[in-house]
Amino acid sequence: MIPDTLTQGQYDTVYNFLSLVIASQLFTAVFLVIAMPRILPRYRQAITVAIVVCGIAAYHYFRIFDSFKEAFVSDAAGGAGVYTQAVGASFNEGYRYVDWLLTVPLLLLELIAILALARKVQTSLLLRLLPAAALMIILGYPGEMSDDNMVRGIFGLLSTIPFLYILFVLFTQLTKSLASQPASVRRTLSQLRFLILLSWGVYPIAFLLPILNIEGSDAWVAMQVGYSVADILAKAVYALIIFYVARMKSYDDDP
Amino acid sequence: MIPDTLTQGQYDTVYNFLSLVIASQLFTAVFLVIAMPRILPRYRQAITVAIVVCGIAAYHYFRIFDSFKEAFVSDAAGGAGVYTQAVGASFNEGYRYVDWLLTVPLLLLELIAILALARKVQTSLLLRLLPAAALMIILGYPGEMSDDNMVRGIFGLLSTIPFLYILFVLFTQLTKSLASQPASVRRTLSQLRFLILLSWGVYPIAFLLPILNIEGSDAWVAMQVGYSVADILAKAVYALIIFYVARMKSYDDDP
Amino acid sequence: MIPDTLTQGQYDTVYNFLSLVIASQLFTAVFLVIAMPRILPRYRQAITVAIVVCGIAAYHYFRIFDSFKEAFVSDAAGGAGVYTQAVGASFNEGYRYVDWLLTVPLLLLELIAILALARKVQTSLLLRLLPAAALMIILGYPGEMSDDNMVRGIFGLLSTIPFLYILFVLFTQLTKSLASQPASVRRTLSQLRFLILLSWGVYPIAFLLPILNIEGSDAWVAMQVGYSVADILAKAVYALIIFYVARMKSYDDDP
Amino acid sequence: MIPDTLTQGQYDTVYNFLSLVIASQLFTAVFLVIAMPRILPRYRQAITVAIVVCGIAAYHYFRIFDSFKEAFVSDAAGGAGVYTQAVGASFNEGYRYVDWLLTVPLLLLELIAILALARKVQTSLLLRLLPAAALMIILGYPGEMSDDNMVRGIFGLLSTIPFLYILFVLFTQLTKSLASQPASVRRTLSQLRFLILLSWGVYPIAFLLPILNIEGSDAWVAMQVGYSVADILAKAVYALIIFYVARMKSYDDDP
Amino acid sequence: MIPDTLTQGQYDTVYNFLSLVIASQLFTAVFLVIAMPRILPRYRQAITVAIVVCGIAAYHYFRIFDSFKEAFVSDAAGGAGVYTQAVGASFNEGYRYVDWLLTVPLLLLELIAILALARKVQTSLLLRLLPAAALMIILGYPGEMSDDNMVRGIFGLLSTIPFLYILFVLFTQLTKSLASQPASVRRTLSQLRFLILLSWGVYPIAFLLPILNIEGSDAWVAMQVGYSVADILAKAVYALIIFYVARMKSYDDDP
Ligand SMILES: CC1=C(/C=C/C(C)=C/C=C/C(C)=C/C=O)C(C)(C)CCC1
Ligand SMILES: CC1=C(/C=C/C(C)=C/C=C/C(C)=C/C=O)C(C)(C)CCC1
Ligand SMILES: CC1=C(/C=C/C(C)=C/C=C/C(C)=C/C=O)C(C)(C)CCC1
Ligand SMILES: CC1=C(/C=C/C(C)=C/C=C/C(C)=C/C=O)C(C)(C)CCC1
Ligand SMILES: CC1=C(/C=C/C(C)=C/C=C/C(C)=C/C=O)C(C)(C)CCC1
Ligand code: NA
Ligand code: NA
Ligand code: NA
Ligand code: NA
Ligand code: NA
Ligand code: NA
Ligand code: NA
Ligand code: NA
Ligand code: NA
Ligand code: NA
Repeated sequence: MIPDTLTQGQYDTVYNFLSLVIASQLFTAVFLVIAMPRILPRYRQAITVAIVVCGIAAYHYFRIFDSFKEAFVSDAAGGAGVYTQAVGASFNEGYRYVDWLLTVPLLLLELIAILALARKVQTSLLLRLLPAAALMIILGYPGEMSDDNMVRGIFGLLSTIPFLYILFVLFTQLTKSLASQPASVRRTLSQLRFLILLSWGVYPIAFLLPILNIEGSDAWVAMQVGYSVADILAKAVYALIIFYVARMKSYDDDP
Repeated sequence: MIPDTLTQGQYDTVYNFLSLVIASQLFTAVFLVIAMPRILPRYRQAITVAIVVCGIAAYHYFRIFDSFKEAFVSDAAGGAGVYTQAVGASFNEGYRYVDWLLTVPLLLLELIAILALARKVQTSLLLRLLPAAALMIILGYPGEMSDDNMVRGIFGLLSTIPFLYILFVLFTQLTKSLASQPASVRRTLSQLRFLILLSWGVYPIAFLLPILNIEGSDAWVAMQVGYSVADILAKAVYALIIFYVARMKSYDDDP
Repeated sequence: MIPDTLTQGQYDTVYNFLSLVIASQLFTAVFLVIAMPRILPRYRQAITVAIVVCGIAAYHYFRIFDSFKEAFVSDAAGGAGVYTQAVGASFNEGYRYVDWLLTVPLLLLELIAILALARKVQTSLLLRLLPAAALMIILGYPGEMSDDNMVRGIFGLLSTIPFLYILFVLFTQLTKSLASQPASVRRTLSQLRFLILLSWGVYPIAFLLPILNIEGSDAWVAMQVGYSVADILAKAVYALIIFYVARMKSYDDDP
Repeated sequence: MIPDTLTQGQYDTVYNFLSLVIASQLFTAVFLVIAMPRILPRYRQAITVAIVVCGIAAYHYFRIFDSFKEAFVSDAAGGAGVYTQAVGASFNEGYRYVDWLLTVPLLLLELIAILALARKVQTSLLLRLLPAAALMIILGYPGEMSDDNMVRGIFGLLSTIPFLYILFVLFTQLTKSLASQPASVRRTLSQLRFLILLSWGVYPIAFLLPILNIEGSDAWVAMQVGYSVADILAKAVYALIIFYVARMKSYDDDP
Repeated sequence: MIPDTLTQGQYDTVYNFLSLVIASQLFTAVFLVIAMPRILPRYRQAITVAIVVCGIAAYHYFRIFDSFKEAFVSDAAGGAGVYTQAVGASFNEGYRYVDWLLTVPLLLLELIAILALARKVQTSLLLRLLPAAALMIILGYPGEMSDDNMVRGIFGLLSTIPFLYILFVLFTQLTKSLASQPASVRRTLSQLRFLILLSWGVYPIAFLLPILNIEGSDAWVAMQVGYSVADILAKAVYALIIFYVARMKSYDDDP
């Protein structure tokens, strides 16, 4: 699905968006490290997990950025011509799955940590959500790697089962727990559900594109931009909202 | 607008200024990290944002510096000849917009945080200024990318609307809030308005140059120098002034 | 034993797993650094050692990853062809032994530190386990380096003696000390024995493959994946379990 | 003035000295960061500035080192032949001025901070010394860049005016303030004047060499070595002396 | 003395040992930074110096490692052939002297700091040992650089004078001060004398080899391994012993 050629405009767009993700994730992590002392110890676990998630994402985007830079080359002066696939260097599409394998379970852990539920509820949620998240990613991977739309479809469907299960558990649980959350963060947490839905939804849609025969360099560039925006929402913006909730709760407990 | 050739003197000038920005932003951030404990907790949010801004700017200037180094090459011994555009490597002019998208809203947040206004005023200001800042950058981008002076002009004009709005809100608000600020920082904050005006003004002027047919390598070098100086003023010097205000206020509250 | 060629799929698989190890070790270390203040001082030595172990592993996997990237090259556009061994660059198989020489003794120290045994028992255990661990690695190295299956077999056998001794001491000691451990961590520590058995067992098995004539690129890729998974279990997951035990004990001592 | 060829011995000498400066500046900064808690808060500003100065110097020497490595190449096996100027890579002589622009004013600030003078005296000193320092560097730069000895001489003379002014103010002021300094540091501060004289004097002397027709690779190598030693004295050794004074004063105030 | 060719086995051995030194020094420094809060403030100066020493050594070994990698190249697939000296890249043998110039005086300072002697004794020791150490290194350097065994011999002898003086002062002083040290560390400090003797002795012996006509690649590889092991003992293991002494003393003073 990787296009054979990109125009300079397309090349620069992908380049700029990939770099934007690096900066967003890296400096969200830096911000959280510096700001953590302002959070009460009991809410710091969520922030620590958020730092790790944004750090891992920054690491992976450094690699994706370098991989992209090497994978497309122009032979015009000032890089002003068409970019073609380089000899011996591929843009590693499977890389994102390596990232998700680590970060998706951690994103769920981050959310559950900030809710500060009863220990038993918390353990039960983690035991259901974390394996489902790992399963979702692992099932999607062979589909992504395959050139056969049939195989892609089947694994996509299988992967969707744990996906829907996660969304279902998250929604019912988040909705249920809203009542026990302090008033100051109730609205934020309620909206957080929609941020998750919006950003997580991008990934299966991008997965569908080749099946829908939406090919070509424009679609591919759009997809890279979509991934980039979704990753900023699902990790950096998400982390900042979690931080805001932690800050509010810290203030409520010890004004 | 990127010139086809640079003399060694021009090449070295741009090279030295880009590196000067890296050093300024990076070590302003380092300074603030080390000096933060000397600030009272209530003023630390502004400093944290300042650190993040200078960090993001340093990151982007590392990339701009490398991009510049690769984009112009000489084939004379000791680099003593003319520098021409390299094969397959372009100087990414759009990069600065990626930086601004993140840093301009944060610069406004930094300022509002240090004023320590009533919570309601603060929220209202942020809800007006942050979207305007994002809009300003996003509208400017297609103009910058276009080769057509017409398109450049139109998007430049559109971008100027939120720009003027931001300046207007900042000026009236800053001026109004001066009265409620401690005497020790009133003069500094009053002068800060002019630093903003002076440094922020550089960007739309640089944007205008191609429309005014001010082309050629000399104009381009001058523009890179102008950007560099403006970025040092608008982020590093600005951060140090914010730090000074935070220090004064800390001292006033707890001498 | 290094294969002459890899398919793109094989190349990407090894590439992705090696990077997964980097991310896992590096961010486990980052997590532990940030979370350490939540542990009581008396259990921090174990965590400090865990940070060092994961840090060393991340360092070595950075090198292994780069070495792998340089050692196999494709000359098809987009890296879509067969990968052959590069001119002048080898994949350094002996590198893992350098890592083990430092980390295996430290992993044992980490375990003994978290048990918080009487000083005398502790010293006696360290004086027996650490030299045995060093011996195990040093004896295995000439076998690994040799092309002669005979030599490999003999050094493998010699290395197995300290290996079995370590396992024996660990098992009897861990089992014996379970009684004196707080109830809250007894089950975790009991299970930890099996994590050690499972992950440590991978290394001698991988060592056996050439002797069993299990050669070829598939076996080699499987072995790299096996090493990667084992290293994540034996260092990162292990460290997180040690952290969990330290957290529980901290809570028991000072709820 | 950059020589056309260097012998291997000359190349290695410059290489080793440049690296020595990196190590000295970087680890002086590291030392000060770790040791800062042993200083009383009121003297920490001087140390913070010292860290920033040594950090900036390390950054610039990393660049100078890389620039030197790229600028001279040998085509003999083992680098055993003559080193000539590389194609397309120049040794950037103007780089040091970028460094000085940032560090010379900071060095003066560092000194004034450690003297802990009355606020008014302090401000008056800074308002005189900092602009003079900036002027001195900015006036020297066109001289350094020019190939014309006449131009070099004129700007050198102009730059010497603020230079002498700075030395004059420093000497009279330092000498005057000695009386109000605690006895334990009086001798050290008195000697510091001579360290400044000795190390700062190197720069105008090096500037003079081309005018005195002292050319050739030997003179150039001697000049690089001289710069390196002067930079270690003027920043790293200077910082350690400031640290020593801060430590003594901390002890006097709170034994 | 640098060999013209290395076998792959020899190349890998040097490569692995140089990397082992990097990991050892770097993570000893990391360990000490994390563990420092467990030491009482009055013993922290020794640990701070130890961190700086290991950091400097790690920096230099990064350079030595890279220099080695570039200096020897193979043109066989998989790097399986003979390694010859690369065009234009030399293995910089003088680099270690740059390291020693900084680290040897610091190692002596580290030792004197941990002994916590009376201020006067301490100053007197430093005034004798530090210049002697600098003299030893500076006198050895021209010998090392020379191709003439005569010159090598003479400077070697000159350098041996301060060497023996240092050993003499250390031994008598350490032995004398043992009585005033707490019982818990007396044995450790007594053994430390032999660690110093053993590790420091390697350097003059390696210096002798060319004079004894012990040449060839095997001797050279053995010498690199010897240097590596000596550097780990003289800096990293030494630092860990100093840490152990600091820990014991901290415990004695404040159990
Ligand atoms: C349902 C589904 C998928 C879901 C992927 C998701 C939901 C990924 C979430 C990633 C996140 C949240 C990353 C963090 O930034 C796959 C694997 C594409 C395969 C096709 C079916
Ligand atoms: C009005 C205007 C612009 C304004 C840009 C500004 C005001 C940028 C500010 C950047 C800052 C403050 C960076 C931080 O260092 C554009 C986008 C060039 C487009 C043309 C019209
Ligand atoms: C018994 C045996 C071996 C054992 C190796 C082990 C047990 C390695 C453990 C490594 C760990 C735990 C790494 C940490 O991640 C060798 C040397 C392969 C040689 C063959 C015989
Ligand atoms: C008088 C004079 C000069 C003085 C330079 C000085 C005094 C530089 C000091 C640099 C320092 C202190 C660096 C820190 O390490 C120039 C510019 C060479 C130009 C010629 C005349
Ligand atoms: C006597 C002597 C020498 C001694 C060198 C020493 C003693 C170096 C110590 C280095 C250390 C301790 C490094 C730290 O890791 C030289 C210079 C080789 C020259 C020949 C004579
Ligand atoms: Na490219
Ligand atoms: Na894809
Ligand atoms: Na260039
Ligand atoms: Na532009
Ligand atoms: Na490759
Ligand atoms: Na192997
Ligand atoms: Na070179
Ligand atoms: Na010069
Ligand atoms: Na090599
Ligand atoms: Na040597």
